[in-house]
Amino acid sequence: MSKRVVDLIISAAHVVPVVPRNVVLKNHAVVVKDSRIVALLPRSEALAQFQALEARDLHDHILVPGLVNAHGHSAMTLLRGLSDDKPLCDWLSQDIWPAEAKFVSPEFVHDGATLAAAEMIRCGTTCVNDMFFFPETTAKAFEKIGMRAVVGQTVMEFPTAYAANAAEYLAKAKAQLEAFKGHDLIKMAMAPHAPYTVTEESMQKVRELAVKYDVPIHIHMHETEAECHDSEHQIKASMSCHQSDQKCRPLANFQRLNLLSKRLVCAHMAHLTDDEIDLVSKAETSVTHCPSSNLKLASGICRVSDLLAKGVNVAIGTDGAACNNGLDMFAEMELAAILAKVASMRSTAVPAMTALEMATLNGAKAVGLGHEIGSLEVGKRADLVAVTSDDIEMIPMYNAISHLVYVAGRENVSDVWINGKCVMKGRELQTIDELQVKASVRKWNDRIHNFYDELQAKK
Amino acid sequence: MSKRVVDLIISAAHVVPVVPRNVVLKNHAVVVKDSRIVALLPRSEALAQFQALEARDLHDHILVPGLVNAHGHSAMTLLRGLSDDKPLCDWLSQDIWPAEAKFVSPEFVHDGATLAAAEMIRCGTTCVNDMFFFPETTAKAFEKIGMRAVVGQTVMEFPTAYAANAAEYLAKAKAQLEAFKGHDLIKMAMAPHAPYTVTEESMQKVRELAVKYDVPIHIHMHETEAECHDSEHQIKASMSCHQSDQKCRPLANFQRLNLLSKRLVCAHMAHLTDDEIDLVSKAETSVTHCPSSNLKLASGICRVSDLLAKGVNVAIGTDGAACNNGLDMFAEMELAAILAKVASMRSTAVPAMTALEMATLNGAKAVGLGHEIGSLEVGKRADLVAVTSDDIEMIPMYNAISHLVYVAGRENVSDVWINGKCVMKGRELQTIDELQVKASVRKWNDRIHNFYDELQAKK
Repeated sequence: MSKRVVDLIISAAHVVPVVPRNVVLKNHAVVVKDSRIVALLPRSEALAQFQALEARDLHDHILVPGLVNAHGHSAMTLLRGLSDDKPLCDWLSQDIWPAEAKFVSPEFVHDGATLAAAEMIRCGTTCVNDMFFFPETTAKAFEKIGMRAVVGQTVMEFPTAYAANAAEYLAKAKAQLEAFKGHDLIKMAMAPHAPYTVTEESMQKVRELAVKYDVPIHIHMHETEAECHDSEHQIKASMSCHQSDQKCRPLANFQRLNLLSKRLVCAHMAHLTDDEIDLVSKAETSVTHCPSSNLKLASGICRVSDLLAKGVNVAIGTDGAACNNGLDMFAEMELAAILAKVASMRSTAVPAMTALEMATLNGAKAVGLGHEIGSLEVGKRADLVAVTSDDIEMIPMYNAISHLVYVAGRENVSDVWINGKCVMKGRELQTIDELQVKASVRKWNDRIHNFYDELQAKK
Repeated sequence: MSKRVVDLIISAAHVVPVVPRNVVLKNHAVVVKDSRIVALLPRSEALAQFQALEARDLHDHILVPGLVNAHGHSAMTLLRGLSDDKPLCDWLSQDIWPAEAKFVSPEFVHDGATLAAAEMIRCGTTCVNDMFFFPETTAKAFEKIGMRAVVGQTVMEFPTAYAANAAEYLAKAKAQLEAFKGHDLIKMAMAPHAPYTVTEESMQKVRELAVKYDVPIHIHMHETEAECHDSEHQIKASMSCHQSDQKCRPLANFQRLNLLSKRLVCAHMAHLTDDEIDLVSKAETSVTHCPSSNLKLASGICRVSDLLAKGVNVAIGTDGAACNNGLDMFAEMELAAILAKVASMRSTAVPAMTALEMATLNGAKAVGLGHEIGSLEVGKRADLVAVTSDDIEMIPMYNAISHLVYVAGRENVSDVWINGKCVMKGRELQTIDELQVKASVRKWNDRIHNFYDELQAKK
C-alpha cells in the first residue's frame, strides 16, 4: 500500500492536544497537509501511513496548540517600559499619549508590529487579537511574517494621526473589512476603544459593520473601578465616564443597547458584580483576562473562577508592552492560574488544564476561530508550538500539562508553526530578519528616548 | 605609573549598583580582586588604572548584584510539579510528605541541591537562604559548585530520615554551626520549621544556638489563615495550631517568648494585622515575601507595601519547586512589584527600584550579609549578574532598572560571578556538569514517577 503524501510530520515525546482535556499523548505525531492537521496518531503509525516532505522528531519536547493572545496592542511594543509606576491617568496623559501623538505613524506601526510578532512567536503565541491605529499596516506586517491575527479596526471619537473623527475611523474600518474578507491568516474585527471614548451612536455603527461582515467586536470594558463608578454617577468631567447619559455601569448600558452578544470580546473586566457575571454568561460574551496589566496598573482582579463557574468563555491576553511590559503568554497563563487561586482562596481554582485551555481554545473561541485553531484536532489549522522539556528549569517532569503552565518559560519554546508553516526552528526565526528588527528598534529607541527626556525636562 | 594588578575587570553598558538607589551607570566597570569589589568606575578609567588577569566587556548588558533568594528548599527541586491544584493539606499529607518519607536521603539532597544550584545560577541567583533536611549535604554541594548559601539547620519535633526528635536535630545543628564557622561561601542558620511543628522548649534552644553562633533564625510564619486562626483558638487537632498553650496568634507568642529580633527571618507572613506589622517593625525582624507560592497555594497576600511603609526589611523568596514550581527570582521580583500594586490599589506601590532592592540588598540584610553582598559597592563580595539587553524581548530599553524588574526573564541572564569567580559564562555553567545533572535527575524522575503512580493507584 502506498503512503499518503503530506507536507509535514511532527513527532514529539509528549503531545497535549487540549481537546480532549487532560490528555498527554506519548510519542505521537501531528500530520499536516495544506496548512491543516490531517492526523494525530502514534508516531510509528504516522511514519507507516504517511510520507512527508518534511519530518521533525522532537524527542525531548511537548507539542501544544499555539497560544492565542486575546488582547494586545502590538505596535506599542516600541514603547515597552517607557514609563512605569505611575498612577494610571498620569501614565496615560503625561507619558503614553504624548509619545503616541508624536510618533504613531504607519512606519511606527509596521516596526512595532514586526517587533511584537518576533516576540510573540519566540514566546509561543501564534495568534493575537490586536487593537491599534493603522490596523491595515499591522495586518500587512503580520501577513508578510505569517503570523495569524485578528486585527481590530480602532474606533473612537477623538482625532489621531490615523483618523479625524468617528466617521473616518468607521469608513476606514469598512474598507479593511472588505479588503481582508476570507483571508487565510488575517481576520478583521471591529475595535471600539472603550465605552468612555466611543459614543452610543458610533457604537451602533460598529455593531452594524460587525454583523454585516460577521466579525468580532473587541473592546476595553470595566477595566477600572473609576470607569464603573464615574459612569454610574455620571461624572462627565471624568475621562473614565462612559459616553452616555445613562446613569449606570457600562455593561448595563451595553445590554440596553443590545450590544452584548457572542460577538463581543471584553478585555479586562476587572470589576464585575454577580449580576454582571450572569449578564455576560447569558449573552455568551467572551472575557479576556489580562492579569499582568491589571496588577501592574492596579486596576483590579478579574473574577475568573466565578466567570468560569457560570460558563463564561474566559481567554487570556498580555495587553500592550507599554504597560505589561512584555507579550509573554506563558507568564500570563501561569499568573492567571495562581492569581485565581489566591483571589478565590481555593488552591483548586483554575487548575493547569483550565489555564492552558484559556490560553489556547478559549482565545480562539473568543475571536470566532474556535473551529479553526486552539486545539490539535484533525481538520484544524496547524498552529503548533514545541516546548523543550529537557532544560534545567524543566526537569524533572511528572505531568506535562502542569509543566506547561507552572514551569515552562517563554524561552523553553523551541519551534513554532503557523498555518502549517514553520516560523521558528530551534529558536531561530524563519520569516523575520532578527538583525533588521533590532536595527529598526534601535532607531526608534533613540528617537523616543530623546523625546521623553525633553518631555521630562519641560515639567 | 604602573597599573595595579587585579583578578577581573567586568565592563558593561549599564551598571545598576542598587546602592545608591535609582542609579544606572553607563559604560562602567567593576574591578575585582581576592573575591571582592575593589573599584567601580568608568570603563576607560578602569582600564587605565588596573591590569586584570581577566577582562570581560559586555556591550549589550546590564550588570547587577546577584539576586538573593531569601526562602528556598533546594533539594525539593526533584519534586518539581509532582502534584498541583490541590488543597494545601491534601497536597502536603497525600503527596509531598509520602514522597519525602520515601526518598529523602543524602543522595536525594545532593542531587536536588545540585539541580537547584544549576537552576538558580542560570536564573541569576547567587545566594539562597535554604531550609531542608541533611543541610550539611546541601552545604557541601553548594561549596563544591561555588554557590553562596545560608543553610538552615532544620529543627522540628517529628522524626524523619534525618533525625529522630528535636534533640537530635539540635545536636546535628550544633555540629554544623561549629563545622562551617567562618566559611567564605556557606553561612549556617537555625531553621525551626514553623510554630506548629516546633515546641516552645525547642524554640528556646534554637535561639540559644543562634545567639551563641551569631546566625539567623529562618522560619515559616503566618503562612495561612488556618495557622493564625487555629493557634488563636487553640484548635489542637489542627496540624496548623502552634505548639503552645497560649491562645494567641504565633507572632504574639514569639513576642512573649522573646523570639522576635533582628536575627529572625519570617517566610511568607501572608496574614498580618496592623499591630503585628508594628511588632515586626519594632523588633527589626525580616520578612521573606514568596508571592508565587502564596498565590499558588492560595495562602494569602503579604502586605508588602504596608510592611515597607513601616520600615520593615522585606526580602523575596521562591519557596521550594514542589509548590512554585521553579526558582526564578526574576519572576518573583516582577510579581512582588505588580502584586503589591493591585493589593494596595496604588500603581505607585513597590516601584521597580524597590522590587530590585528587595531581591538583592534586602535579601542580604535578612540573612545578616548586608555588609557583604546585595549591592555593587567597593569592599563587598563580587556576586554579580549580567543581563542581556539586546534580546528581542528586552528591546527597546528606556530605563534599565524598569527593564530588570518588568521585562527581563531568567533566560536573559548571560553571565554570573559568585565571590569573584565566574560560575556561568554566556549561558554555560562553569562549575556544574549539566549533562551529569540531567542524568541524575532522570534517574530520580523515573523512580519518583513510579512511586507516585503506585500511590495514586492505591487510593
